[in-house]
Amino acid sequence: MPLGSSEIRGAQLSLLDLECSSILRSKSTAVQLDRVESTVSGLTDWQQANAREMRRMWVYANAVPKRLLNSLHRAVTKAEVQWRKAVEENNFRILRPHLEKVVELVREKAGHLSKKLDCSPYDSLLDEYDPGRRTCEIDPVFRALRESLPSMVEEAIQRQAGEPVLKIDSAIPVVRQRELGRAVMKQLGFPFDKGRLDESLHPFTEGTAEDIRITSRFSENDFLSGLMGVLHETGHAMYDFGLPSEWFLQPVGRDRGMTIHESQALLLEMMIGRSRDFFEYAAPRIAEVFKVTGPEWDPDNLFRLATRVRRSFIRMEADELTYSLHVLLRYEMEKEIFNGTLCIKDLPEAWNENFRQAMGICPETLKQGCLQDSHWPQGYFGYFSTYVLGAIIASQLFRVMNREQPEVLIQIPQGNFEPLFMWLNHKVYRWGAKLSTQDLVQQATGEGLNGDHYLSYLKEKYHCSP
Amino acid sequence: MPLGSSEIRGAQLSLLDLECSSILRSKSTAVQLDRVESTVSGLTDWQQANAREMRRMWVYANAVPKRLLNSLHRAVTKAEVQWRKAVEENNFRILRPHLEKVVELVREKAGHLSKKLDCSPYDSLLDEYDPGRRTCEIDPVFRALRESLPSMVEEAIQRQAGEPVLKIDSAIPVVRQRELGRAVMKQLGFPFDKGRLDESLHPFTEGTAEDIRITSRFSENDFLSGLMGVLHETGHAMYDFGLPSEWFLQPVGRDRGMTIHESQALLLEMMIGRSRDFFEYAAPRIAEVFKVTGPEWDPDNLFRLATRVRRSFIRMEADELTYSLHVLLRYEMEKEIFNGTLCIKDLPEAWNENFRQAMGICPETLKQGCLQDSHWPQGYFGYFSTYVLGAIIASQLFRVMNREQPEVLIQIPQGNFEPLFMWLNHKVYRWGAKLSTQDLVQQATGEGLNGDHYLSYLKEKYHCSP
Repeated sequence: MPLGSSEIRGAQLSLLDLECSSILRSKSTAVQLDRVESTVSGLTDWQQANAREMRRMWVYANAVPKRLLNSLHRAVTKAEVQWRKAVEENNFRILRPHLEKVVELVREKAGHLSKKLDCSPYDSLLDEYDPGRRTCEIDPVFRALRESLPSMVEEAIQRQAGEPVLKIDSAIPVVRQRELGRAVMKQLGFPFDKGRLDESLHPFTEGTAEDIRITSRFSENDFLSGLMGVLHETGHAMYDFGLPSEWFLQPVGRDRGMTIHESQALLLEMMIGRSRDFFEYAAPRIAEVFKVTGPEWDPDNLFRLATRVRRSFIRMEADELTYSLHVLLRYEMEKEIFNGTLCIKDLPEAWNENFRQAMGICPETLKQGCLQDSHWPQGYFGYFSTYVLGAIIASQLFRVMNREQPEVLIQIPQGNFEPLFMWLNHKVYRWGAKLSTQDLVQQATGEGLNGDHYLSYLKEKYHCSP
Repeated sequence: MPLGSSEIRGAQLSLLDLECSSILRSKSTAVQLDRVESTVSGLTDWQQANAREMRRMWVYANAVPKRLLNSLHRAVTKAEVQWRKAVEENNFRILRPHLEKVVELVREKAGHLSKKLDCSPYDSLLDEYDPGRRTCEIDPVFRALRESLPSMVEEAIQRQAGEPVLKIDSAIPVVRQRELGRAVMKQLGFPFDKGRLDESLHPFTEGTAEDIRITSRFSENDFLSGLMGVLHETGHAMYDFGLPSEWFLQPVGRDRGMTIHESQALLLEMMIGRSRDFFEYAAPRIAEVFKVTGPEWDPDNLFRLATRVRRSFIRMEADELTYSLHVLLRYEMEKEIFNGTLCIKDLPEAWNENFRQAMGICPETLKQGCLQDSHWPQGYFGYFSTYVLGAIIASQLFRVMNREQPEVLIQIPQGNFEPLFMWLNHKVYRWGAKLSTQDLVQQATGEGLNGDHYLSYLKEKYHCSP
């Protein structure tokens, strides 16, 4: 989109959103919903779940005043443009008033929502992305990660320092990386007759099962980052493609929130993509598309590169082990912003201080620091935690999959990803939003959210002491 | 858009269209419109014109049943995909049932519309694209063109055969052509902060003054076709950018129909772009961007290439002199389709026969023949005539501009297009839909539609006998 077009785009999205929400707010919707709920016993379990999801949409649509939604849409559209400028010019003051406006409006929204959901304002923001999730469930799990990870990172870095790894020095043209991305997506089963791969500053997945667009970003000097971005977004897309088609466009036919969505993206990127088995498949493809040879392109070396642990500034480029630390500090700062102990004006300093404490290094530019993500300018507060919650659930799913169907992983070196996606379809995709997040995880793994499995998975993969 | 996504896209567009038309069909809209019209004397002339345009929208929205609009949307979305396939495989049968369906539904729509507009069904199709235009006004004008053009084409070809022209043999990479297109658009004043240039099979311009997207198509062996496409679409875009901003998104703030729109596109492409003066400006830019030298790149030679007359199959690639013949035969066939004397199954043969009579050559493939345009599969019957009507009005505007402000053309070799667009803004853009098409032409040129000026312009430019 051209930079100067952001206002009209904001107005258009806002108008569509208002039209949708005025259907949800209309008296006839309320009457119909009441009628459905009074006869719920005569419905199938899918229909009942559909009614429950409709009620959830109704609550959200009726909790927040029209005027506020409208203002928020316009504010985030403007803030996103100013965020781009602020990053370019390394100047927080360009973004600050716009981000303050966004926070003010999100806070107002959370005030309304929290009353309806009977929770704290920040909990109501979490609930929007991960239905039913609350800080009281997250806090102890995240605390355990925060306590264990720094020493694990230190241990892994020490151990890897003694391991030989060959750097890749040649620049890989973006056009080749794009070609590799498409080839890998095809092999994974991404249906290109109903989707596309494009490029953008911040990778994303958008659309419905009939038309899914994913983007990645490619850098000549770091092809692994682009490839892992492709895997991440393809994980999102495969979930969307696998949602129950008989409930297409119905509330119960949608995905089960962003934590489950991220679990699918991270399972494909981290557990599958950053594995020795995956590079056994990928190394010959990479050599062919990039027209390269040499020991640095061997599966072993590529796997070592993809699991290299280092303290770095950018979440999007972080390795698997440090990744959660990036997210945990965002989660803590969000809580502080919404309980009023952190002002936006102090954000750059607070970010750098928290980052230094968690990671031991301090960002030098805003692009390395608090302006690296578009989430906050876009108003997505309460979203970041879904990345780590998603990683935890991904590790739980991965553990059960290895136990129940070890042949899934055995097929990967041959480039056969069908058993993987069949299993994920069986356990996750096809359920849509029929079950609550908690019930879905319980049904698929036999237990609730359990951060211990994630720590065990990381310790085993990165050879950390138990 | 991915090919497999066309159905859901059709369903989405259809839904949005139905939502818009149900607002227009609602009782409260009718009541409000009646109230405005009963107090019309208290309104400014712009407000009155706005009310008139609202009534026009209301008539259109209420003339055609919802069900039919819905079916038509779905049918054209499917037909467009099948058209692409039919072109690829040179097989009319792939498109035929889908085009028949589209024609059947357009005929049904025309039946409803013509009753409300009190005209023939085909006239009602013309009216949608060019408000107030009827076949009885077009027929004599087009007949005069059809009678004069073939001998003018013959005369020009004979004369040009004795003129030296250097062919351009080197292939020009698409990436360079894109760069040239952007540079020329910039020089013309296209605001890239509120618009983009992309590529597609069929060039188009879409959007509002706050976000305009144009596309062209580039072929390595014919850079002039791509460049002229860019000028054509930029002509459309500049009109949209110049519409009265104080009436932005109001009916009276819109363009004055597709004939006036095409007049702006053709004035820029044909009268300005295919002129000796334009190539005086463009030749050094072309040499610089394409990194080429030699006498074939001189302004004189480029001008001769851009005004070279030849009998060819593709309207989009036709020269200025033969262009109208391409359109006239489509207009005649549309009339036959809608008065029932031409069946879709006979279209390829009828096309070839009519084409042979007008142009003296006969297409060998469907891509050269009746499948070259997407208009019919998209349901745009009644549209083609706007190209020639637009060319006629462009020539009338061009004539008056040369008389009133000869300095406009004098500035063009220096690449100063500001006086041109100021004049067009003054005469056309800023009026939006305030005046009827007829009144706008009358006010700008001092007379109504007059095909004689177009013939005179062509005769002078191509040195044909009077």
